[in-house]
Amino acid sequence: MLEDGKEFEKKGRYDGISNIPCTPSDIYAVKPIGVVQSCFQEKFATPRQPGLVKDSQAKITLFSEYMPEHSLSGLAGFTHIWAIGWMHLNTNKNFRPKIHPPRLQGKKMGVFATRSPHRPNPIAISVAKIEKIEGNSIYVSGLDFINGTPILDIKPYLRLCDCIPDAKDGWVEENAFPQLTVEFSPQAKEDLEAINRHGLKELIEETLSSDPRNRRDSSQMGDRHDMGFFIDSYDVHFAIENGKAVVLRIEEGKQFVKKFRRDKR
Amino acid sequence: MLEDGKEFEKKGRYDGISNIPCTPSDIYAVKPIGVVQSCFQEKFATPRQPGLVKDSQAKITLFSEYMPEHSLSGLAGFTHIWAIGWMHLNTNKNFRPKIHPPRLQGKKMGVFATRSPHRPNPIAISVAKIEKIEGNSIYVSGLDFINGTPILDIKPYLRLCDCIPDAKDGWVEENAFPQLTVEFSPQAKEDLEAINRHGLKELIEETLSSDPRNRRDSSQMGDRHDMGFFIDSYDVHFAIENGKAVVLRIEEGKQFVKKFRRDKR
Repeated sequence: MLEDGKEFEKKGRYDGISNIPCTPSDIYAVKPIGVVQSCFQEKFATPRQPGLVKDSQAKITLFSEYMPEHSLSGLAGFTHIWAIGWMHLNTNKNFRPKIHPPRLQGKKMGVFATRSPHRPNPIAISVAKIEKIEGNSIYVSGLDFINGTPILDIKPYLRLCDCIPDAKDGWVEENAFPQLTVEFSPQAKEDLEAINRHGLKELIEETLSSDPRNRRDSSQMGDRHDMGFFIDSYDVHFAIENGKAVVLRIEEGKQFVKKFRRDKR
Repeated sequence: MLEDGKEFEKKGRYDGISNIPCTPSDIYAVKPIGVVQSCFQEKFATPRQPGLVKDSQAKITLFSEYMPEHSLSGLAGFTHIWAIGWMHLNTNKNFRPKIHPPRLQGKKMGVFATRSPHRPNPIAISVAKIEKIEGNSIYVSGLDFINGTPILDIKPYLRLCDCIPDAKDGWVEENAFPQLTVEFSPQAKEDLEAINRHGLKELIEETLSSDPRNRRDSSQMGDRHDMGFFIDSYDVHFAIENGKAVVLRIEEGKQFVKKFRRDKR
């Protein structure tokens, strides 16, 4: 019924709105209801969308204040949830209306036409598959949240209204992530064998195949530059060589420390 | 890799989390980036899920601070958006871990297994179809937000990751909303003809067919009780008669005033 925007405004609807206290200087308070434990330890190499690294596992633990034994009851009948997260590592101070999505390799896009974390309110929505629910915890796969992400809400995924099979994905549809072939060096193969952790190889492959570098990384850290990222407590080192991602070595039992690790050798 | 929750915790991941300042007493600040104008004026009769009333129209207007001419660029290539809204009419003071979903007619459900607005953080996510984007405004259909809802974020709907065709909807799947047949009284038919507003009849039908009454309404306001709700500035009166919703009359040019209107005659 709003087909004619002018008519809509003429009818005094803006008057209705001015009665409602909503101005750009308003602030609302949100609080974490729980926290994520995830295999991804830092922004670098955390998947850019949910489901990209299907083998990734995470655990969402609710604070006892939210009485998970009652508030989660009935959730196990669903296969998927929406996790609403607070992107706590977002360091943006000023609003930028356009950003450089990694898919576009230099071109800019309006921030509200992207799922970039660099937004006015660092709220993330991510669909994840429920693996199991146990006590105060939801075990999920496919979540693209960094370890320690505060959780603001959990909602069941409703296929009924959330799944739109004929939706068109705009610029994303025509700009798939560049897929990298992933290879393991002899050292990395040895490390994998020594670590002997089920699924680690697949997790590294899925993570690297989407090329975790952003545009600046790609230009500054070109071929054969030693780059690292953490999967759980495994410090995975790789380099790009002739357009392939080569895993150099995997160091075990490391503690992730936040610093500009990519320059470390 | 977290299949064994115990092993996960043994590996010191909780230590990692304790380094990150996330406790139940934390508070984060969010701010509105814009506001919704919607045909729905009050909680009563606002659809309980997006897409239920497909003909409903809404307009999301961004504040000029967020430079919509740049920040919305590229969004028109998508067919759908996620609107992240602040459910400003939520009056819950205390957390209740279980709520009564309208579909369950008396039975309780854990709040995180529902899309109820009565949540610790009154954040709503709603998918809506983009009708057009003009200047600082996104015109959408199917949105289940009340007029004046502050908007915290707009994200493009990505079929690629947001559409899960084989998801199972748990208890919702087995508890469809009771569908009401909607009839118009001779007076209501006259009113519709006099108003002559394209799509109004369909909008009223879609809204009433899901039975807007909650459980308390249903018991307190039984057959032939005159109830009203607003669609834009139309005050729609109806009653339930023998399990059918009968539209009694439609009053034009009214201003919605927040009060317990359902008792008004």
